[in-house]
Amino acid sequence: MSCASVVSRRLEDADVTVLEAGGHISFAACGMPYWLGDEIPGDEDELVVVSPEEARNERGIDVRTETRVTRVDPQARTVTFETADGQGSLSYDRLVLAPGVEALDPFGCSQLANVITLRHLDDGIEAKALLEEHEPETACVVGGGFVGIETAEALNRRGIETTIVQSSDTLLDRMLVPELGEKLNERVQAAGIDLETNARAQDVLSENGRARAVELPEGEVSGDLVVVAVGARPRTELAQEAGCRVGDHGGVVVDEAMRTGVDDVLACGDCVAYPHKVTGDDVVMPLALHANRSGRIAGETLADNEAAFPGVLGTAVTRFEDLEIAATGLTVEEAEQAGFEATAATIESVTRAGYHPDADPIHVRLVAEQSTGRLLGGQILGGPGSGKRIDTVASAVWMGATCEDIEGMDLAYAPPVSPTWDPVAIAARITGRGVDG
Amino acid sequence: MSCASVVSRRLEDADVTVLEAGGHISFAACGMPYWLGDEIPGDEDELVVVSPEEARNERGIDVRTETRVTRVDPQARTVTFETADGQGSLSYDRLVLAPGVEALDPFGCSQLANVITLRHLDDGIEAKALLEEHEPETACVVGGGFVGIETAEALNRRGIETTIVQSSDTLLDRMLVPELGEKLNERVQAAGIDLETNARAQDVLSENGRARAVELPEGEVSGDLVVVAVGARPRTELAQEAGCRVGDHGGVVVDEAMRTGVDDVLACGDCVAYPHKVTGDDVVMPLALHANRSGRIAGETLADNEAAFPGVLGTAVTRFEDLEIAATGLTVEEAEQAGFEATAATIESVTRAGYHPDADPIHVRLVAEQSTGRLLGGQILGGPGSGKRIDTVASAVWMGATCEDIEGMDLAYAPPVSPTWDPVAIAARITGRGVDG
Repeated sequence: MSCASVVSRRLEDADVTVLEAGGHISFAACGMPYWLGDEIPGDEDELVVVSPEEARNERGIDVRTETRVTRVDPQARTVTFETADGQGSLSYDRLVLAPGVEALDPFGCSQLANVITLRHLDDGIEAKALLEEHEPETACVVGGGFVGIETAEALNRRGIETTIVQSSDTLLDRMLVPELGEKLNERVQAAGIDLETNARAQDVLSENGRARAVELPEGEVSGDLVVVAVGARPRTELAQEAGCRVGDHGGVVVDEAMRTGVDDVLACGDCVAYPHKVTGDDVVMPLALHANRSGRIAGETLADNEAAFPGVLGTAVTRFEDLEIAATGLTVEEAEQAGFEATAATIESVTRAGYHPDADPIHVRLVAEQSTGRLLGGQILGGPGSGKRIDTVASAVWMGATCEDIEGMDLAYAPPVSPTWDPVAIAARITGRGVDG
Repeated sequence: MSCASVVSRRLEDADVTVLEAGGHISFAACGMPYWLGDEIPGDEDELVVVSPEEARNERGIDVRTETRVTRVDPQARTVTFETADGQGSLSYDRLVLAPGVEALDPFGCSQLANVITLRHLDDGIEAKALLEEHEPETACVVGGGFVGIETAEALNRRGIETTIVQSSDTLLDRMLVPELGEKLNERVQAAGIDLETNARAQDVLSENGRARAVELPEGEVSGDLVVVAVGARPRTELAQEAGCRVGDHGGVVVDEAMRTGVDDVLACGDCVAYPHKVTGDDVVMPLALHANRSGRIAGETLADNEAAFPGVLGTAVTRFEDLEIAATGLTVEEAEQAGFEATAATIESVTRAGYHPDADPIHVRLVAEQSTGRLLGGQILGGPGSGKRIDTVASAVWMGATCEDIEGMDLAYAPPVSPTWDPVAIAARITGRGVDG
């Protein structure tokens, strides 16, 4: 929809058609866990950014929901689709593929009545109905990534006895070093959520068409409700059939203007791979900002304007109750995989002046190139206000700053919002000690 | 004390003596307004960072309080001082001047019993005693800068009917463009504080040794208590007598290692001028981080280690109730004075996803060089979590980022902490439209 909206603005005479398999178009996927937990009140319309009616009436876009594209023919320049009324087809001058991702379901259980995955608004609506109508007492969440943790918090808020099954020792293990992940584990457990760590779910066990438990290598976790949150993969089938290249990363390969290499076929959103700003490698990173940005760029390209996708750092933030967790750039492992020799340090500071009664601990970890001190990434975990401080780190990584640059920066201080020396600057000072020379 | 602490760590055999005119050494000056308003509970020890006893016992520093230096003789390498017991003198190998600033008192009223200035901990202690013992019902605060606003909030919290007298139309007028200052005005008035804007205080009127009112060009504002918060000036008398250069900016001139040019005499802290990172000009900027940093650098220089002051941007943040206000770098006026042709834009966004019930408005203004798009400064005003977002701007200014760089940055998004497009990135996009080419 970002793309369609740009095109409809830029090319007033163009016929812009959007074919959507589901019932909704532009919606706030990341808001669903908060809506399930009633932190965001109201019905599902709260999460709708643009409704099909608004897109039609205000932007002149021919939006067709419940319309599943089944085939793309780039030679004939046609798209074939299915609706409840049967098959149809459309011809195009230019085509944009933006089918997004689908939630992974290694257990083949997503059709069971009491199993939730959270990717599309229809998933969220179904999940909320399940919660409100069946009032489950116990839930098992498979996966301790963003979606798993946020959903577990929502279920816990609703008074449901919740267990998270995580394959590694700590939650958010792909973005947080274990010493920080351990602090998140503790907080989640303190909130009354059970953690089964170092436990790879083997299967979802069912009975009479309903999930009843998650099978672990040793024992099982039963639940009136099972949430499968083990990741997502780009939907690339249509693109592949149309002759677009799909990389080892699993995403559609595009250039910086979102062109696929097939004549007049572009792709954007969660289904494509983006170039990493630090490593230069293409990565699959289904996050809202990039989907939105790549859509806009595809729109500009369609309108023959120059636009280039600037890259990603993998910046991400979430919150468990009042603990904020964020990361950007590379971990030490990722840095080493990318050929950097890396040094890193983790510091503990406070979110406000130490004498302020609302000061909370904040932990900052920075990763730098050992030979130059150039910042490669960072991780933050701490009390209210900690999460968005990752943007200071992201901005610095983006601009190629060194630890010395960051230590010297004039960052903001006032007792109610920061200690005199900003925690990121302190982390830069300590990390800098590991830099050569 | 930053300097003395570094020296005592680096040079274990050195005799380090600190002569302090007042009764306290290292204290949190910026915390005083919050302590006056009981937001920071407890006695004045809460604000003491290092006590004289700790400095003596734990760091081996010979701290002498209530010891006022009256003369420096760089030829004889001696310092003359006064205590309650009479005069004395000390010889030195190396001398560091760090007398800080004194509050401006254009009305010559600071000795009146019910007049408050807030620079030194003794001022704060006196002010708190006044508040607790005399329970004033009305107060007039002269000056709508940081100290004025923070103190007015504290008095208002205590139930004192408070008026702020501000010479210009809007509060914080030196850092905030009027359209943002106006929003602060409104919030301060909504809290029940009276504002006399565009009103330059003429005098403080007294009776029987007590202030009774502040005289304005038209009328007067009476008060059981008067706060004079119209700025501060570096204390440069001793430095000047010792032959150190004082600039038109009013501060002691030092090089990047904090040397004054007089043999073995250094200066650091609020009394010196710092180089501005963007303009290169020396500026007087009595803020905690720079004082602390310059002290450390003076300490390294004394210990014959290489260290260089990296410059300042003038980053500052404060908070009025739950409204956070921050700025960094140059305003359009400052940019033009420094020879830049500047473009600027102000945007309004939200602190969290728009559908989150706790989303608050946030306003971001960016100032950029018109010919290149290079970011020169920024201002932010908004709800909780807004203030420290200035660090993203500060980091970008520091690194020479353009509006295009910032628009492309991968900044953090999650519904409870940010909208998908970070407000700073949105401001960069809009500001970038005013850039040439």
